[in-house]
Amino acid sequence: MTVSLPRPLRGIVPPMITPLSGPDALDVAGLERLIEHMFAGGVHGLFILGTTGEAPSLSYRLRRELIVRTCKLVSGRVPVLVGITDTAFVESVSLAKHAADAGADAVVASAPYYFPADQPELMHYVRALAAQLPLPLMLYNMPAMTKIAFAVDTIRQAMSIDNIIGLKDSSGDMGYFHEVLGLLGQREEWTLLVGPENLLAESVMAGGHGGVNGGANLKPRLYVDLYEAAAAGDIERVRTLQRQVMRVGELYRIGQHGSSIIKGLKCALSTLGLCDDHMAEPFERFNPPERDHVAELLNELDVKR
Amino acid sequence: MTVSLPRPLRGIVPPMITPLSGPDALDVAGLERLIEHMFAGGVHGLFILGTTGEAPSLSYRLRRELIVRTCKLVSGRVPVLVGITDTAFVESVSLAKHAADAGADAVVASAPYYFPADQPELMHYVRALAAQLPLPLMLYNMPAMTKIAFAVDTIRQAMSIDNIIGLKDSSGDMGYFHEVLGLLGQREEWTLLVGPENLLAESVMAGGHGGVNGGANLKPRLYVDLYEAAAAGDIERVRTLQRQVMRVGELYRIGQHGSSIIKGLKCALSTLGLCDDHMAEPFERFNPPERDHVAELLNELDVKR
Amino acid sequence: MTVSLPRPLRGIVPPMITPLSGPDALDVAGLERLIEHMFAGGVHGLFILGTTGEAPSLSYRLRRELIVRTCKLVSGRVPVLVGITDTAFVESVSLAKHAADAGADAVVASAPYYFPADQPELMHYVRALAAQLPLPLMLYNMPAMTKIAFAVDTIRQAMSIDNIIGLKDSSGDMGYFHEVLGLLGQREEWTLLVGPENLLAESVMAGGHGGVNGGANLKPRLYVDLYEAAAAGDIERVRTLQRQVMRVGELYRIGQHGSSIIKGLKCALSTLGLCDDHMAEPFERFNPPERDHVAELLNELDVKR
Amino acid sequence: MTVSLPRPLRGIVPPMITPLSGPDALDVAGLERLIEHMFAGGVHGLFILGTTGEAPSLSYRLRRELIVRTCKLVSGRVPVLVGITDTAFVESVSLAKHAADAGADAVVASAPYYFPADQPELMHYVRALAAQLPLPLMLYNMPAMTKIAFAVDTIRQAMSIDNIIGLKDSSGDMGYFHEVLGLLGQREEWTLLVGPENLLAESVMAGGHGGVNGGANLKPRLYVDLYEAAAAGDIERVRTLQRQVMRVGELYRIGQHGSSIIKGLKCALSTLGLCDDHMAEPFERFNPPERDHVAELLNELDVKR
Repeated sequence: MTVSLPRPLRGIVPPMITPLSGPDALDVAGLERLIEHMFAGGVHGLFILGTTGEAPSLSYRLRRELIVRTCKLVSGRVPVLVGITDTAFVESVSLAKHAADAGADAVVASAPYYFPADQPELMHYVRALAAQLPLPLMLYNMPAMTKIAFAVDTIRQAMSIDNIIGLKDSSGDMGYFHEVLGLLGQREEWTLLVGPENLLAESVMAGGHGGVNGGANLKPRLYVDLYEAAAAGDIERVRTLQRQVMRVGELYRIGQHGSSIIKGLKCALSTLGLCDDHMAEPFERFNPPERDHVAELLNELDVKR
Repeated sequence: MTVSLPRPLRGIVPPMITPLSGPDALDVAGLERLIEHMFAGGVHGLFILGTTGEAPSLSYRLRRELIVRTCKLVSGRVPVLVGITDTAFVESVSLAKHAADAGADAVVASAPYYFPADQPELMHYVRALAAQLPLPLMLYNMPAMTKIAFAVDTIRQAMSIDNIIGLKDSSGDMGYFHEVLGLLGQREEWTLLVGPENLLAESVMAGGHGGVNGGANLKPRLYVDLYEAAAAGDIERVRTLQRQVMRVGELYRIGQHGSSIIKGLKCALSTLGLCDDHMAEPFERFNPPERDHVAELLNELDVKR
Repeated sequence: MTVSLPRPLRGIVPPMITPLSGPDALDVAGLERLIEHMFAGGVHGLFILGTTGEAPSLSYRLRRELIVRTCKLVSGRVPVLVGITDTAFVESVSLAKHAADAGADAVVASAPYYFPADQPELMHYVRALAAQLPLPLMLYNMPAMTKIAFAVDTIRQAMSIDNIIGLKDSSGDMGYFHEVLGLLGQREEWTLLVGPENLLAESVMAGGHGGVNGGANLKPRLYVDLYEAAAAGDIERVRTLQRQVMRVGELYRIGQHGSSIIKGLKCALSTLGLCDDHMAEPFERFNPPERDHVAELLNELDVKR
Repeated sequence: MTVSLPRPLRGIVPPMITPLSGPDALDVAGLERLIEHMFAGGVHGLFILGTTGEAPSLSYRLRRELIVRTCKLVSGRVPVLVGITDTAFVESVSLAKHAADAGADAVVASAPYYFPADQPELMHYVRALAAQLPLPLMLYNMPAMTKIAFAVDTIRQAMSIDNIIGLKDSSGDMGYFHEVLGLLGQREEWTLLVGPENLLAESVMAGGHGGVNGGANLKPRLYVDLYEAAAAGDIERVRTLQRQVMRVGELYRIGQHGSSIIKGLKCALSTLGLCDDHMAEPFERFNPPERDHVAELLNELDVKR
């Protein structure tokens, strides 16, 4: 009854925001509405507990609750990927076991993000982690948050480990992305997804498999359409849809801090009545005037629930 | 029977390494030997679960075990400060409550280190955290790991919160340190300690209160002597002892990765028979030839247990 | 008889290396061979005295000689763009006048690169510079060397200045590139070119006008072909040619320093007998074994003069 | 009649601002007043064409004029050091010859600042430069502007070259400073000076030879006094004077850009009637309200010409 994890995993896999109704409290009704909203848009998978999901800011208790509820709500309709990125190895493994018990399909881990490991240390870490995981592992390149990137050569080595099945690259560095693309001949079922949504089209046209794009929480159909246009090589349609994606990106520049991406997205989802926009510490939700700007932009973009 | 926390806290407060005997396993006998070794050197306090203590790499279970055992072993002889730095607010508060129950004297927190908060967000975070803590809070400026520093103006604001009692500055930026020193007139019982050990003497001569220096795990008496010479303004003695401190620093440059500071320190302690040198992931202990270099250096420095 | 500068300027505009035969000495015969080699490959313009041209490392005397000789050799066959980037405003203006006298078509300037200007200061600088130039100005975004990028909003403002005619973006940040693309509606004859060669195809498919790609010194036809395939939306051909471009890029990773890009390119051109590979200080040419690796790679790539 | 260059050079060597009366025009009368103002304060040398002197922003013509006029005005009363930092090797050597002809005592060079050289390349550069210079060379560590620092091991190697006579360290990294101090035993006449003025006292107490401190343009006597108190180990007097130096530093935080240090200093000197405060591009002088804040601060500090 449930799908198995496609190899490679193609399409749009939204990095789900975590709907919160207050400090350490999940917005359970909002979670259900948000998941159904994304399914209505045709998404190909779901990634919870990533950066957009504020995972590092959530208690372990809440992370575990989210994993169980999401797997139950998705109920095998698409693959569920669970972020287990942590500075403590033991906690990552523990979360992964919890995800496996809940029925998730894979886990996702970036570099540990307090101590900056050098590449041989990072490779040692990845190898040790993969050996203890009950689920396939997708790596997550996110140097803006973790301070270090997975070097191309480290990815090459990681490809030789069976249960490492792909990479989500959120570096925004397309030169790097092309180099990793060049490694895919080595293992054809490996998945390569891109994070920044304005790079979705070109990464897919170049041979990538899809996107883990925050905006797909809000406008899942737009990203699915753009993915399909790019996969079909329909450049005219790509340009039209890309312009719309760029406009959604204006949402992320409302407000004055680096945290505006998640705040803007949550505020928009709340404005549409999909879920609460409480933010985990150290951040706070948008208030007016930012909240008003979000509403205006949604109006201009004609975004509806 | 127990000391109360002096305000300001003066002297040498070693950031204790965490003795591990294996993955997620505390070296209990080593912990006791290490603590007694530092007490024999005359240290003025103990800081556990900091960067040198590999705190972010440890499971919460092990952190809790360490807190309880350390407080019991110290038994009120000096103040115990407990690191609660975390990306998840709820987990920081929870650790602080555990520390209070165990009898610790204060907690220490740096900026949350996944999402880089801007200064108003950081101030909001600090305010919210301080409000929920059962113990006094010392801030910890560690931009090399957390990506962001506490701005001088943020420190100024934090000083107006009663149970924020000081700052440990590990930025290595003495210009910054002097600026914070200039704020101390505002609250005379506030504590200002310095992290990098080669800056201990000058920071104390300039008006700082002491050091949280990793090398004091190994040679506690040397750092206590240097602190005292600096506090007494004995420049000749300062220069002599400073040269010895610089030599201990050679330990941190053995090996080729940024992680060499903790690896070198743990390896030296193990070589002296004080405790095991197992490292938490993502790192591994020194093997030969690094281990041999450590032994040679200890020999040259005439360090004994 | 000479072409006028097309607006926008489309196609491949190689950033020419500067052939040197010794310290402060131009390789005059090599310069002629190199220019004819690129013309045989069908390039659409020539950019001298950029980063690849080692401009900041050359004496002003040599820069002036190069400008005069190049303009004479090109003789109006394609537009010549001359880099005038400098930390001293007066010297930039002086070089621009020299370029105008020699018959160049436009000048190119990045941010001044010693003092990092903030955006309002940068805008002031650009405005003052444009007012004194006898030739149209193309901006050059090169934050890896200049420490600061032209913010999107600064580009927007610069577009309102008549004789600022375009941007060469060497940031490698395609998110930024897409944002600048979004401004082109404002001034349709504005030129937007990309620096990193592995981003040529996707930038052109997204609406960019071409590339200023170092590899076009060596294999001009390959880059012209890739440009044309991308402009025609021929994705299959793009992928084939992109793989060849990625292989040329292996040249830039021979050697162990950041300077390997220019060293590798010059060494390859010298190996083909096109020109000398002397490097300006602080760098030195490749010797064996690097030189041998370059020869092997050229052999594998079947590059001929 | 003229002094010879002391080895080591001890005391306060102000990095002179360059008084400008307009674009590419020296304020000749202001230059004389400024030099005499500093001499009245007892400075031990003069460093022209450094960062504070806006050297990279000045035309070569103006740099040459400044060298000649300054050497004539100083007339052998103290040593004159001339900055020759440049991205073009040939231009550095040419400036050095000009300085030798004008009667300067030494030249000062940082790393070339466009292409970031790796350490072996930097060592090659320094060696080649020293071989062609007609005057002794002091190295200048300024990573905030040049992107790269001289590694401690590179300094160690440079010490083996006879006409490299010292280091001005403007990194602000006292850990680094202590490591270089540790090398001085190797060559006892070598000079080690510190740039940031709030580090002057501690660097001298630790064994450094003095400071190249911008504030000495304005209050030369204060820095000379602080130097002498530190050299004498008079900690109480050091603390008192250090507080005054910290207050001068408030000048550098007026205005909102990184360029405020030079702007604030020039504005203060102009307010005192010493010289014009025209800034070289890309910067502009302070206008009200910044100018008023400078005047208020000067009043509070009781600074007089």
